[in-house]
Amino acid sequence: MEYRRIKDQDKDGDPAIEDVESLRVKALLDVPPPIDKTKWKRKSAVTLALTFLTSSQAILIVWSKRAGRYEYSVTTANFLVEALKCTLSLAALARTWRTEGVTEDNRLSTTVDEVSVYPIPAALYLVKNLLQYYIFAYVDAPGYQILKNLNIISTGVLYRIILKKKLSEIQWAAFILLCAGCTTAQLNPSSDHVLQTSFMGWMMAIVMALLSGFAGVYTEAIIKKRPSRNINVQNFWLYVFGMAFNVLAILIQDFDAVVNKGFFHGYSLITVLMIINHALSGIAVSMVMKYADNIVKVYSTSVAMLVTAVVSVFLFNFHLSLAFFLGSTVVSVSIYLHSIGKLQR
Amino acid sequence: MEYRRIKDQDKDGDPAIEDVESLRVKALLDVPPPIDKTKWKRKSAVTLALTFLTSSQAILIVWSKRAGRYEYSVTTANFLVEALKCTLSLAALARTWRTEGVTEDNRLSTTVDEVSVYPIPAALYLVKNLLQYYIFAYVDAPGYQILKNLNIISTGVLYRIILKKKLSEIQWAAFILLCAGCTTAQLNPSSDHVLQTSFMGWMMAIVMALLSGFAGVYTEAIIKKRPSRNINVQNFWLYVFGMAFNVLAILIQDFDAVVNKGFFHGYSLITVLMIINHALSGIAVSMVMKYADNIVKVYSTSVAMLVTAVVSVFLFNFHLSLAFFLGSTVVSVSIYLHSIGKLQR
Repeated sequence: MEYRRIKDQDKDGDPAIEDVESLRVKALLDVPPPIDKTKWKRKSAVTLALTFLTSSQAILIVWSKRAGRYEYSVTTANFLVEALKCTLSLAALARTWRTEGVTEDNRLSTTVDEVSVYPIPAALYLVKNLLQYYIFAYVDAPGYQILKNLNIISTGVLYRIILKKKLSEIQWAAFILLCAGCTTAQLNPSSDHVLQTSFMGWMMAIVMALLSGFAGVYTEAIIKKRPSRNINVQNFWLYVFGMAFNVLAILIQDFDAVVNKGFFHGYSLITVLMIINHALSGIAVSMVMKYADNIVKVYSTSVAMLVTAVVSVFLFNFHLSLAFFLGSTVVSVSIYLHSIGKLQR
Repeated sequence: MEYRRIKDQDKDGDPAIEDVESLRVKALLDVPPPIDKTKWKRKSAVTLALTFLTSSQAILIVWSKRAGRYEYSVTTANFLVEALKCTLSLAALARTWRTEGVTEDNRLSTTVDEVSVYPIPAALYLVKNLLQYYIFAYVDAPGYQILKNLNIISTGVLYRIILKKKLSEIQWAAFILLCAGCTTAQLNPSSDHVLQTSFMGWMMAIVMALLSGFAGVYTEAIIKKRPSRNINVQNFWLYVFGMAFNVLAILIQDFDAVVNKGFFHGYSLITVLMIINHALSGIAVSMVMKYADNIVKVYSTSVAMLVTAVVSVFLFNFHLSLAFFLGSTVVSVSIYLHSIGKLQR
């Protein structure tokens, strides 16, 4: 019920649908489309930023693992990521207030009705992160990497069901290819172990994919509910609840470690860089939700995965496998099909 | 020049183009299309036959390898395959003559002009088979299996260039996916060796793919040149030259072995079954060329590869890899895209 309401309110303001429709009409009329060009530029900029930040994020993770420093508590780092995102949103807001003044759309104060849905994505991520500790009893780490590609499918399905947005047949085909291509690119000689995953392991992987997909799609619904609302205000409230739920995670998972060893135990330069990177890519995700959608987000992070692998060849002397080339080919064709599928819709 | 002439003469009689066009018109007029239904049924029947024969062919090869019997000379077996195909074509013709009488289209006698192009496919296959002996100096057997998927691309490109038939953008995307999917399905832990293939190895693999693709496309051009001509007459002349060029292959490659050990040395029940199977699938290929095209042939043999793997699970206790599932998914999506790409053209 809630989602349908969000969707209905959003109908006229969806930039993605507007983009395609009006571009098509304008192309016919041969009139320069100035507003849509700005929108398209903004959409491209946030998508590129997300791709860049996600790939550098993966590279930082590889670097930190290589340096053998992964000893800090993840929950405190997650809390700091949320706190940094919150601070950056406030700083951006302060600038807006100075230049444009305080308006209905950019003021921080809110109503219970508006803010009541904001804790939901953070709560979903908390549950997902807690589940992550248990899934490793059923699936090994490389297997989990493979199963995480189920996120692609769950995001597509929930995007269709919850946001009631349609993908064309070709775009669905492209989405299945994206999932198959990403998985193929990650194949390694031990990948076949994942086929021996128990029923319980499959169930947990599917539940986690659904939680993650649901959190993403729900965030898009929240952000798009009021298109004129300043994104930094929306982010501020999302991140406030993100901080709150991460305090909960610290208490549940790392309370002893934090009390005994201190909050910043095991932090290093790489940890700080990783926190900054996570904060920036978190904001980029929000921007993509505002100006594009979850489908663009999935494509962006998938391309980032391929970029990471290629960059790692130069940075860490990685070898690219035949499977990587095949998977990259399939992902590239998927992106092409997604774009032509949009026009033919 | 020759090809263009063939193509021009063929323009009105191409069953594939006729099919799509007239089906579309008839669908609009809502008139039952009886002739096209017959054509469609015939096309499906020959395609299914080719798929079935190709998969059982691969299973026979696995079986013969498992039985450790691969000691017969391949060139003598190839000669017998051509001879059997020739005999079967003559038998089918004799039946036609009895029921329909001898006509301009089903009489065996021919003109120099008609028959002059028939030796070309057989000659191309001979060159390709001779090259096959040399490529193993540069590429190992599993690597060669992987590189053989280049045939898919070469067939598509030569089909476009020589037969001047258009594939839609989606169908090209589907064709790239078919190649990537088939290769993915065949991945195994040692597949990465193929990335170390030398320049010379790549060149030979590409030349062999072009020879094989050219022979296939040229055969289609010959068979479609005169659509009303009885397929068994066309086959008879193709196979006569097939026999002639295989005699040449015996003389070049296996003369000593045949003289010293005899023509039928090393033959077993499996060998006989393989010869019968090769002959029948050879005839099925011709039928697919006549009533469908090279693209259908490539899809048919690719599906056969997947069917073979699944059947081998039951017959030989094979294990299917994750790569196989991913590759099969990509091939399935490719087939779907090829079919919807046709309608949207």
